[in-house]
Amino acid sequence: MGRIDARLKELGIELPAAAAAVANYVPFVVAGGLVFVSGQITMKDGKPHWLGRLGETRTVEEGYQAARLCGLNLIAQARAACGGDLDRVRRVVRLGGFVACTPEFTDHPKVVNGASDLMVEVFGEAGRHARAAVGAPSLPLGVPVEIDAVFEIG
Amino acid sequence: MGRIDARLKELGIELPAAAAAVANYVPFVVAGGLVFVSGQITMKDGKPHWLGRLGETRTVEEGYQAARLCGLNLIAQARAACGGDLDRVRRVVRLGGFVACTPEFTDHPKVVNGASDLMVEVFGEAGRHARAAVGAPSLPLGVPVEIDAVFEIG
Amino acid sequence: MGRIDARLKELGIELPAAAAAVANYVPFVVAGGLVFVSGQITMKDGKPHWLGRLGETRTVEEGYQAARLCGLNLIAQARAACGGDLDRVRRVVRLGGFVACTPEFTDHPKVVNGASDLMVEVFGEAGRHARAAVGAPSLPLGVPVEIDAVFEIG
Repeated sequence: MGRIDARLKELGIELPAAAAAVANYVPFVVAGGLVFVSGQITMKDGKPHWLGRLGETRTVEEGYQAARLCGLNLIAQARAACGGDLDRVRRVVRLGGFVACTPEFTDHPKVVNGASDLMVEVFGEAGRHARAAVGAPSLPLGVPVEIDAVFEIG
Repeated sequence: MGRIDARLKELGIELPAAAAAVANYVPFVVAGGLVFVSGQITMKDGKPHWLGRLGETRTVEEGYQAARLCGLNLIAQARAACGGDLDRVRRVVRLGGFVACTPEFTDHPKVVNGASDLMVEVFGEAGRHARAAVGAPSLPLGVPVEIDAVFEIG
Repeated sequence: MGRIDARLKELGIELPAAAAAVANYVPFVVAGGLVFVSGQITMKDGKPHWLGRLGETRTVEEGYQAARLCGLNLIAQARAACGGDLDRVRRVVRLGGFVACTPEFTDHPKVVNGASDLMVEVFGEAGRHARAAVGAPSLPLGVPVEIDAVFEIG
């Protein structure tokens, strides 16, 4: 068992299956030593979870959990990109976090922390990434969070 | 005639002229074997088309056509980045799709498919890309879709 | 004194201190010769400035100044990524500009120009970048502009 797989087990985290893209795109592309992962939403067992918007029907704590779920889906895609061996992840380079919210909402960073914290729990120092956290009026299927990522793999 | 130029002809697609940037930025930058293309909007013959928002004044089918037009403008920029030879495109790495829409709109993926389908029509397997599709309250000039891209070229 | 430091002095620009990230992420990550800088907002002396939204409480000229402030913060991070030597910046590759605005707002490019103009003032031709400029219903802490960046360094 690899180092990161052992860490996932220690944390009690079971990664979801890497979801297939549902149109003419793919979940990830490897180019120039970087893995560009498609925006992952709050899918769990093939269904969208946590529907709603921040500042309206979803609390910051629920948004945090939604972002964590996006992060699990990102790591599942990274594992697929690494041919199953997450120890090949050298660095989480960047997360792009989109939060469905009202015009009055201001706590986007606290929401996206759900994914950021997960990356550091799983990858340690290598999980510390650059990121952006911004609002959107709505996101695909009505989910509250979408996050895309760039990983560096060896 | 190059392979991709022949494919464009077969598809009956005439690429627009690559639009110049209208301020202190450029349409694309090549760095590390990747081409970063500026966000392309629904410009055609120098004028914005399909003005409006999804979920309000524009249907999903119109949004799909708008995204396809953004995709044509992206390929025009990629051609310029390749010195005119689209056969140098190794891979469409990533599309970032922004859809101007209402808070209730949930079909962002169906809209951005207009650009994704175009990439696969033109570049085949090399056209399959990572992507994000998110909402925005509004976009430059009132267009319904803006899409940026990363290409890998040889 | 380096070439870019001299240019900053000539322009009368004093860069802010590079702000620390306030959660489990970092202000920048270097990967593959590129520096991915986290989204910078309108922080000045540790406090958010220019709160509000375009098309509502902020004018385009105020938005331009807000974007320029984001740009200063981006350059401060680039300097930190270069170990203090901005002459190592080979190219400003890409800016991703998010403008908090109403659904009726259409002047996103004029706002983001505040950062684009700054990059060219400071880095000359090397400051000309690819970019995207899009709207958001709201941004962290209620700021009107957030901009992330990719730099190429040597």
